[in-house]
Amino acid sequence: MSESYRELALLRPLPVAKLRACGVPEPITFGQADRVRFRELDVLDHVNNAVYLGWFETLRIAYLRAYGIGDYEPDGERPALVLRSVSVDYHRPLHLEDVYIVTGRTVAYRRTSWTMEYRVYSGGHHCTTGHAVICLMAPDHATRMPLPEAYVATFRDRDGAEREG
Amino acid sequence: MSESYRELALLRPLPVAKLRACGVPEPITFGQADRVRFRELDVLDHVNNAVYLGWFETLRIAYLRAYGIGDYEPDGERPALVLRSVSVDYHRPLHLEDVYIVTGRTVAYRRTSWTMEYRVYSGGHHCTTGHAVICLMAPDHATRMPLPEAYVATFRDRDGAEREG
Amino acid sequence: MSESYRELALLRPLPVAKLRACGVPEPITFGQADRVRFRELDVLDHVNNAVYLGWFETLRIAYLRAYGIGDYEPDGERPALVLRSVSVDYHRPLHLEDVYIVTGRTVAYRRTSWTMEYRVYSGGHHCTTGHAVICLMAPDHATRMPLPEAYVATFRDRDGAEREG
Amino acid sequence: MSESYRELALLRPLPVAKLRACGVPEPITFGQADRVRFRELDVLDHVNNAVYLGWFETLRIAYLRAYGIGDYEPDGERPALVLRSVSVDYHRPLHLEDVYIVTGRTVAYRRTSWTMEYRVYSGGHHCTTGHAVICLMAPDHATRMPLPEAYVATFRDRDGAEREG
Repeated sequence: MSESYRELALLRPLPVAKLRACGVPEPITFGQADRVRFRELDVLDHVNNAVYLGWFETLRIAYLRAYGIGDYEPDGERPALVLRSVSVDYHRPLHLEDVYIVTGRTVAYRRTSWTMEYRVYSGGHHCTTGHAVICLMAPDHATRMPLPEAYVATFRDRDGAEREG
Repeated sequence: MSESYRELALLRPLPVAKLRACGVPEPITFGQADRVRFRELDVLDHVNNAVYLGWFETLRIAYLRAYGIGDYEPDGERPALVLRSVSVDYHRPLHLEDVYIVTGRTVAYRRTSWTMEYRVYSGGHHCTTGHAVICLMAPDHATRMPLPEAYVATFRDRDGAEREG
Repeated sequence: MSESYRELALLRPLPVAKLRACGVPEPITFGQADRVRFRELDVLDHVNNAVYLGWFETLRIAYLRAYGIGDYEPDGERPALVLRSVSVDYHRPLHLEDVYIVTGRTVAYRRTSWTMEYRVYSGGHHCTTGHAVICLMAPDHATRMPLPEAYVATFRDRDGAEREG
Repeated sequence: MSESYRELALLRPLPVAKLRACGVPEPITFGQADRVRFRELDVLDHVNNAVYLGWFETLRIAYLRAYGIGDYEPDGERPALVLRSVSVDYHRPLHLEDVYIVTGRTVAYRRTSWTMEYRVYSGGHHCTTGHAVICLMAPDHATRMPLPEAYVATFRDRDGAEREG
């Protein structure tokens, strides 16, 4: 299975069939591939633990674009989003030049925030799991805003996210 | 209280009285100060969420040295430690040139791993909380090793850590 | 021309015809594309100046693999290379989600070191120029080593590099 | 001499007498100390080459504050500065926990830009030399602006900078 990773197009949302061929299970439908860079290693020759948060951030922006929440063009619309919390579980280390897939899915939403789950797959193995709670803020970045119905609809319809609280 | 932060010695373990004067509560006894750098900001002018894991890592190495677990000298002893999981809760953002204190305390230990809690304080406010589960590995970095009794004794005696599992 | 950038395969050496179609001139024959990530921006919304050195490093490792100098596999051969100097000229800033090509070419070599030129192209524009002087070291990372004839041959034959000094 | 480094106050402009005691020669008068962090190392156990540009950036902001050019407070004045070019010469590597001094001095100025020289000292050795050309821009970040006479006066009077071009 690790051979098929080498051939993946990088940094573009992958077709669901490709995700499945790489061992990414249902109900995950959004992910894109990338490759470990030298600068991401630490002295143990593994990807440093802090680097994963950058990967989740890159995936999150691709997700927000693909799901119609923000366009992130130079002069475009960027919703004011702030992370409330993150967590990462490291199951297997990654090494230089490993091709990996980062997936993202909204698993739950509340009035002013939502929870995404991220996963990293490489060589057919589930290597890392992460979570983030993301809050929508007013343009002042200080006041919380209720999620627009359009966000909720897309989280529910595309990702099967559940209402909490 | 934010004035007293400006005067702190940076990147050295702070005396407990100094921690208390800066609003760091019991039972925390280990922390050191640092200052936000330009490169740590993201486009929102806040410290980027991934940067905190680097701060906890820097604090962790100071802690391991101070607690006699590793010396981290160029040719010195470095125990083979691997993170199993991390989490961060962001209560308040930090900005350029803010002086902050990162604290670290072992709250629990098991046969082959222990859990540290990290906190960030700035201007007298508790801004961030983090946790990490750290595993001791054999020099091959693949086999888990039981924690030496010396580790456990220092976690228990200095930090009041509790045995789990 | 910027449309053609959007379609580029990322992080793989690009065919020369593709480089030319993207405005990369002769005699450059080695380059690969990538896309600007959120974490690479600074508070001015531009790619931070230090980030380019990481891009050159990523390109350099792809180059060393493609030119048969090191394989950079997890347990593979990595020549002991040390940078003596780097420089970067910034002609145009890059922004979030810009697709760019980094090229690399060895322009000169000496007994124990060689000089690479790097360029960044985006939207058909030449945005950045960099240089690095790279030294080959003995495995102790302290003693300089003469470049093997195989390195020199590939620098000369593929890149038209000239002998200096 | 390396013992005296260990005792330096970090991330604050050092008195000139302290700089001299640490082996920093005339005519340099501005520098501050810091300590190498784990995250700054690469797999060779040396400080990664790109990290130095971040150090120069941190020093530059301290310099701009100390010389009255920008205050960099959260809501304060930040002149629109853009780097035109940078270069770094690596003389000696740095390692984990090394205390080092970064110095900065304006060596030359022109109508709309100036050139700074940066140096890194550690253990009494001159380890690294850098240069940056900095341009003053209008608030649109696109049009170059002539340097105010106040900048020129401080570069000339405090640093002995020379007019070029």
